[in-house]
Order: sequence, then C-alpha cells, then structure tokens
Amino acid sequence: MSSYFQRHIFFCLNQRPSGEDCCANHGAQEAFEHCKATVKKAGLAGPGQVRVNKAGCLDRCAGGPVAVVYPDAVWYTFVDKTDIEEIVESHLRNGQVVERLRLADDVGR
Amino acid sequence: MSSYFQRHIFFCLNQRPSGEDCCANHGAQEAFEHCKATVKKAGLAGPGQVRVNKAGCLDRCAGGPVAVVYPDAVWYTFVDKTDIEEIVESHLRNGQVVERLRLADDVGR
Repeated sequence: MSSYFQRHIFFCLNQRPSGEDCCANHGAQEAFEHCKATVKKAGLAGPGQVRVNKAGCLDRCAGGPVAVVYPDAVWYTFVDKTDIEEIVESHLRNGQVVERLRLADDVGR
Repeated sequence: MSSYFQRHIFFCLNQRPSGEDCCANHGAQEAFEHCKATVKKAGLAGPGQVRVNKAGCLDRCAGGPVAVVYPDAVWYTFVDKTDIEEIVESHLRNGQVVERLRLADDVGR
C-alpha cells in the first residue's frame, strides 16, 4: 500500500523536567522549524510528498536531538542547519539516506 | 533494514486555536493515554516492539481523531477505548490491520 505522505519526518521536541537532558536542550525546535521551512520552500510539502511533524519524546534521548523518517524507519541526529538541509535534499527529496547523520542502532533513552 | 520500533504509533494531540475543529476536541489525549497504558500492560512497549507517541498536527484534521502506525503507514480514526484496544491487539501486537477503523485515503486537512 502507498503511504499518504511519501516521507514523514518526526522531530522530538520534548522538554524533560528538572534539568534532565533532552532534545529540546539541543536545538530541536530550531531544527524542526528550519526543516519545515526548507521543505515548504522546496515545494515538497503535502500529501503524496513530505510532512514535517512535531513529536513528543521518541525515547532515544541519549542521541538527542533526534528525528525519524517514516515509512523508511531511518533515524537521524543532527547538529546544525546544514545537516537539516542535507536530510531534506538527499533523503526527503531524493530518497538517499544521509549515512553520516544516522543514529547508531544501540542508542536508546 | 529493520525498524528500531517494530511498530510506532503517533497520535495527533494538536489543539487548534480559536475553536477550529481538531483531534484534541475529540478525545485524542484520552485515546493516547489509553493506548500507552494498554501497550505497557500487554508487555509490548520498548525497542524492537511498540512505541506509542505524542505528535503535533498530522494534517488530516477532517478525519480526527487520527493516528498513524509506521513503518506500515496505516492511518486510523477511532471513537472509543474499544477501538484503541482493537488496534493494540490486532495491529500493534499481531500485525493485522483493523480495516474498519482505517481512515479513507482522501481525508485531508
């Protein structure tokens, strides 16, 4: 079956209480906003194309900030806007996973 | 490649401003919490198994409340706790899509 969104990326924007480390402390909100704007500007947003989504805790906090692209089930960690732009251009537009930004399989909470 | 979570369900919990209709007005929070508790009680929660996640607007508001199961890319709408329990038992545990609760393909914002 086909996916309503060809690629659906979820950013963890969770803010953990009482100073525990979390994606929100590592620029997650800015990355989400930059991704959303970049996808829109590239004309990739919408049904049959790409959706950039806010999410609660994705439970892989040790690798934060994290995002996951479905239905590919590819997880990323990222540092700056250039990383986000590479994910958009390479993966979200062209389906090429950005290997250098992949989250290691054993990273959990 | 295998998925970090075998099945990852996202519930739209978005509250739209100024009275626009949205999932949050249709029991989305309660459904999320019931799903999370049911999955935990069933021993299905965790890496390699199931993750129940909060999400922002999934942009299919006209079918709200909605949830999506990845990597399967199956979208659901639901009414009550029985619906949630059926999604957990049938789909999240056994991989059988609950056809009667599927969101129609043409439902958008």
